[in-house]
Amino acid sequence: MKSDLDRLMRERDLDAIIVAGGEEFNAARYYMSNGAQITHGALFKCRDQPPLLVCSRIELEEAQKSGLALLTAVELGYYERLKEAEGDSLLATARHWADALQRLGMDAGRVGLYGAWQINKTIALYQTLTHTLPQFEFVAEAKGSLIEEAMLTKDAAEIERLKSVAARANAVMETVRRYISGLRRDGEYLRDAAGERVTIGAIKALTRRELMARGLEDTNMIFAQGRAAGFPHSRGDAEVPLQVGKTIVFDLFPRELGGGYHHDMTRTWCIGFVPPAVQALYDTVMQAFDIAVEAYGLGKPTHLMDEAVLDYFEAQGHPTARSHPQTLEGYMHSLGHGVGIDIHEAPSISRLRREDRFQIGNVLTIEPGLYYPERGCGLRVEDLFIVDERGQLVSLTPCTKDLLIPLHAED
Amino acid sequence: MKSDLDRLMRERDLDAIIVAGGEEFNAARYYMSNGAQITHGALFKCRDQPPLLVCSRIELEEAQKSGLALLTAVELGYYERLKEAEGDSLLATARHWADALQRLGMDAGRVGLYGAWQINKTIALYQTLTHTLPQFEFVAEAKGSLIEEAMLTKDAAEIERLKSVAARANAVMETVRRYISGLRRDGEYLRDAAGERVTIGAIKALTRRELMARGLEDTNMIFAQGRAAGFPHSRGDAEVPLQVGKTIVFDLFPRELGGGYHHDMTRTWCIGFVPPAVQALYDTVMQAFDIAVEAYGLGKPTHLMDEAVLDYFEAQGHPTARSHPQTLEGYMHSLGHGVGIDIHEAPSISRLRREDRFQIGNVLTIEPGLYYPERGCGLRVEDLFIVDERGQLVSLTPCTKDLLIPLHAED
Repeated sequence: MKSDLDRLMRERDLDAIIVAGGEEFNAARYYMSNGAQITHGALFKCRDQPPLLVCSRIELEEAQKSGLALLTAVELGYYERLKEAEGDSLLATARHWADALQRLGMDAGRVGLYGAWQINKTIALYQTLTHTLPQFEFVAEAKGSLIEEAMLTKDAAEIERLKSVAARANAVMETVRRYISGLRRDGEYLRDAAGERVTIGAIKALTRRELMARGLEDTNMIFAQGRAAGFPHSRGDAEVPLQVGKTIVFDLFPRELGGGYHHDMTRTWCIGFVPPAVQALYDTVMQAFDIAVEAYGLGKPTHLMDEAVLDYFEAQGHPTARSHPQTLEGYMHSLGHGVGIDIHEAPSISRLRREDRFQIGNVLTIEPGLYYPERGCGLRVEDLFIVDERGQLVSLTPCTKDLLIPLHAED
Repeated sequence: MKSDLDRLMRERDLDAIIVAGGEEFNAARYYMSNGAQITHGALFKCRDQPPLLVCSRIELEEAQKSGLALLTAVELGYYERLKEAEGDSLLATARHWADALQRLGMDAGRVGLYGAWQINKTIALYQTLTHTLPQFEFVAEAKGSLIEEAMLTKDAAEIERLKSVAARANAVMETVRRYISGLRRDGEYLRDAAGERVTIGAIKALTRRELMARGLEDTNMIFAQGRAAGFPHSRGDAEVPLQVGKTIVFDLFPRELGGGYHHDMTRTWCIGFVPPAVQALYDTVMQAFDIAVEAYGLGKPTHLMDEAVLDYFEAQGHPTARSHPQTLEGYMHSLGHGVGIDIHEAPSISRLRREDRFQIGNVLTIEPGLYYPERGCGLRVEDLFIVDERGQLVSLTPCTKDLLIPLHAED
């Protein structure tokens, strides 16, 4: 968690960190600046000292919400640096960053770079930094970075926000389920109270309205039916009408309005009736879910949980990415991932990532699935869990896992 | 525009480009993959050849919406590369990218890198690429990159989408204006039909609902009142009640739902009455707006338009970032910027950026403003313009620029 940063810097022998980047949603900067909604600016922190946020003067008021020490780029002399550099903004930025570190009393040392930005600009700036500022050693961590490791365990305030988002996301899922159960069947399709044929687009629009009414925003939900549900990341096409007896994969991963913490949950539904072959697959997925939860243990490597699910699916005769590396059906994604400001964070629950162990403060999904696009179906069930202060794995996703949505108004 | 890519690659002596990066909104990859909503994957294009999109198998269905040639990472042998590299995913990625280029018939050459990703991962991958693949020269453009230059001029299909977003955003702005004019005054505050005191949060919620009903999504609008409006990028606090006679800066820059093209517009409002000092400032901003539009000329450097506005504001006695580099009041941002998939694109309309010239297909804002936080006010007016096929500057933002919102239901 954030209070671990100095320790994590010491472990990495980092004297300072810079968290920079562009205006698009930048989880590392959001995290380090306590959620301030700034489009420009960089954060500088020397080990065992509080951070300094350097912002644009036009965002001063917004940057103050970080509660951090602030300087505007103007105050720090950015425009003099730009003039000196004859308009070369990379050179100006490199010198400006050295100015910021000097303000914090640092003239040389190892500096970790974090944040999110354009790939081309990042590389060009890195080249300029290393040429212009030989007194600093710039460190780029590829895997298990300082910020990722800090974000890997959530503190009490973060858990409270995640619980609140979870409660609201679950309420939306229940509302959509109840809405569908009130539709009227018309052959293989469904009609609403006004007699309109209900499409995936209408369900997504309802979902977005319900999210917004609860202070959440959609980040491109999946609501995919039949064959499309057989591709784990198909979003679902708006114009497709809802059909009875097809598998629907509804993967909802909204975040706090304007950017912030996420929830992540998936339910699989069949409207009106469940074909027996689908019920059998669903029972297998639910069994895999239970096996995953039982495989949990505080301190245990996370990849063992994925392997327990792989063992089970393979024993049941389903191809997996482990048994059939080329497969496009069966089980071919990883079992889960951490969730926070980013929708995909550490830890990874995957046979391919062997470094992570379950820790107090982890927030992670468990989401086994089976996909058979050629049979016209796909199924996935996903809860978000926290590892609580006693080391227990606790679900934040109480919404019913019933596969069948019965129609209450059958004609 | 996109059809210029091969010419732009030739001008930069690039044999190929790779557009890669993370799952957060990645304008370059969105652009190059025709809007496909993929979270993983990279696009490879050799000069004078069509692109190849390499995607995750779990996103195959979604990637097909790009209309591009596709390969899954599995098909291209990524997992063999990962095994070979003993789990070093950067090394595996470097070799995987070489495999993709080889599929396109390329064994060596100059390769431009684009997209958006974490800063630390980008640098680490770049280091691995240069060590592992010496047969390629990897090029990182800092300024005026290939993709930026392609996006600088929009084609007919893009202009149609931008016009559609513009019409919808203007309708939302009008709706909010009309809603406010129907509120009841209660001293210096306002009440709605239910007798509730109306807050900025309520107006933002109304705006989001109206956007969503039109297939748009908010990207953190500014609705800032009084002193907060005096800081150009203050978002406005939800709990602040609307007040009569204060300047309100309403900067709305929504995009197509799920990510896509933006509109960008700002109006300044006073509810109920306009203090004379505010009217005088507003007249000055509107005059600056007209001076900017008159300074337009096809082929003319864009910075001259900003300088015309700076000359005028300074002649009127207002401090600017040019006349008073440290100023926190007056006019201290640039005059405008391009708009498209990113909210801030080329061209820049700024004295600090002297390379850009107005071209057919440009889509850009003009947004002069004056800010006096210590006097409790800020004002900005912004339209989005296209440079049409005849070279004319045409506004896409017809919404009224009336400063006063009269209250129709005064008690």
